[in-house]
Amino acid sequence: MLRVIFLGTGGSLPTPERNPAAIMINREGELLLFDCGEGTQQQMMRAKTGMKSLSSIFITHFHADHILGIPGLIQTMSFQGRTEPLKIYGPHHVHEFARILSALGYYKLRFEIDAVDLEPGDVVKRDGYSIHALKTHHSVPSIGYALIEDERVGRFNRERAIELGVPPGPLFSKLHRGEQVEVKGRIILPEEVVGEPRPGRKIVYSGDTRPCQEVLEASRDADLLIHDATLANDQQEWALESMHSTAEEAARLAKEANVSRLILTHISARYSENAEPLLTEAKKVFGNVTIAQDLLETEVVLRDEIGASQK
Amino acid sequence: MLRVIFLGTGGSLPTPERNPAAIMINREGELLLFDCGEGTQQQMMRAKTGMKSLSSIFITHFHADHILGIPGLIQTMSFQGRTEPLKIYGPHHVHEFARILSALGYYKLRFEIDAVDLEPGDVVKRDGYSIHALKTHHSVPSIGYALIEDERVGRFNRERAIELGVPPGPLFSKLHRGEQVEVKGRIILPEEVVGEPRPGRKIVYSGDTRPCQEVLEASRDADLLIHDATLANDQQEWALESMHSTAEEAARLAKEANVSRLILTHISARYSENAEPLLTEAKKVFGNVTIAQDLLETEVVLRDEIGASQK
Repeated sequence: MLRVIFLGTGGSLPTPERNPAAIMINREGELLLFDCGEGTQQQMMRAKTGMKSLSSIFITHFHADHILGIPGLIQTMSFQGRTEPLKIYGPHHVHEFARILSALGYYKLRFEIDAVDLEPGDVVKRDGYSIHALKTHHSVPSIGYALIEDERVGRFNRERAIELGVPPGPLFSKLHRGEQVEVKGRIILPEEVVGEPRPGRKIVYSGDTRPCQEVLEASRDADLLIHDATLANDQQEWALESMHSTAEEAARLAKEANVSRLILTHISARYSENAEPLLTEAKKVFGNVTIAQDLLETEVVLRDEIGASQK
Repeated sequence: MLRVIFLGTGGSLPTPERNPAAIMINREGELLLFDCGEGTQQQMMRAKTGMKSLSSIFITHFHADHILGIPGLIQTMSFQGRTEPLKIYGPHHVHEFARILSALGYYKLRFEIDAVDLEPGDVVKRDGYSIHALKTHHSVPSIGYALIEDERVGRFNRERAIELGVPPGPLFSKLHRGEQVEVKGRIILPEEVVGEPRPGRKIVYSGDTRPCQEVLEASRDADLLIHDATLANDQQEWALESMHSTAEEAARLAKEANVSRLILTHISARYSENAEPLLTEAKKVFGNVTIAQDLLETEVVLRDEIGASQK
């Protein structure tokens, strides 16, 4: 499972329909939160994501609309009895912000917060995937993130294994793990029954940024790109000044990076209720584009599995 | 106009239905906010209260669920171009909290925050009303608030004035303001056409507290008492330990104080969807009781005007 849940899709000003920035990724049951705007804990309750499995929060930058949900969320997790430490990653000053955010409201946390400073180029290696910090271009120190799964072992050809006389059971697993087995005096090699390794899936989240080379490179052939699309073309100047992207700019980047799918987020309050202009301008450039909305959930599938998963 | 808008009615843990504590009072167009839990700015948008007319925030205590909405709200008001200073009142440490809350998120506020420490017994005098800080009994330094309007001038007897030969217009206002006028050589005194002064309205908000004498005294004959009713009777022990009130305890206090109307708030997550047990237990003791829900709005009218206003 690799599922993305949009908890907050608004711009700097929330609206009744759109919470400030927060995107949850559920990877095989582990929850990773990217940005955590005010009200994120309630959105998690609405989306029924649970909180126990939240291992890490990745902050793109320390503008208030990306972080103000942290104090309430950590307090609620503490009330609920959490004792596992929580990692909070972010650009410069993450330690200082984590300290301030934890100092609010008298409460003593029952778990540790482990704040980790990331520079563009840093990689957080996890079991089965890694998170890459990307240079982005915003008005304050900022980073984007790419979640890249490790290459996955090839598919196990069950029929072929049975043909070769391997009995279903532990020997199947052994072969799939890459070990050879012996059946009735004959050595069976893994490559006889296991297909080509499959690439891992890749999700890129730009955070708030002007379109930039670094996000483009990181997004090459991504299965999903989630990009800043604060404004429409009629606000191009303001996009430049506020260091955000227009929907069309995001679509151009998605096209050039050859991504499978583009979801636009950080939608300015002026388009909160009607994001049609953003969608229209993006679609002219890149077909497989969606405007995120709060509580939108989507499964991320490999390009060559899209057909299969949509059956 | 004296209108109360419940923006957040939940307990320490918000739920999908109930935001953390926040109560807005709109008095003749001036907005006063009592507590400001996470998500208050969005609730203000949903209730269409506006933000420009917000003059003051009164904090009952510095538990996170009562204050975490402040940073987002002040940032949004700054984005919207606010330049008028904002008063934030609260018990001990309000300065320190205001400093921390304003320090979050890089932004420079365009307006001043004027933090004011209140002790029980302090009175904030305003034009036409005053706010009294009340001693309350919670697990951290805390205060409740009574909003008491000044005595209002009596009703103007229009028919009597016309009988006395006063022409409708500026002389009516003069008499209503308490000045005598001369009509065709005869002096008309204000007391001939203006009724008895009418008492101002009184609203009491307990904040989080055990039932206590100080809130009882302050609530005597109040037009509206808004009281902590976190728990039902089956959680009486937990109410004692966590220093909250049960619905029945709040109702008993309302009865003893002879208030006109009681609204229960700070509803624990366990009753968030179904607060029937709280209502049933309170109603046995005090009839005119309501369980607050998010976005509930109510006009506060004087006891002797209730009949008239309900026509």
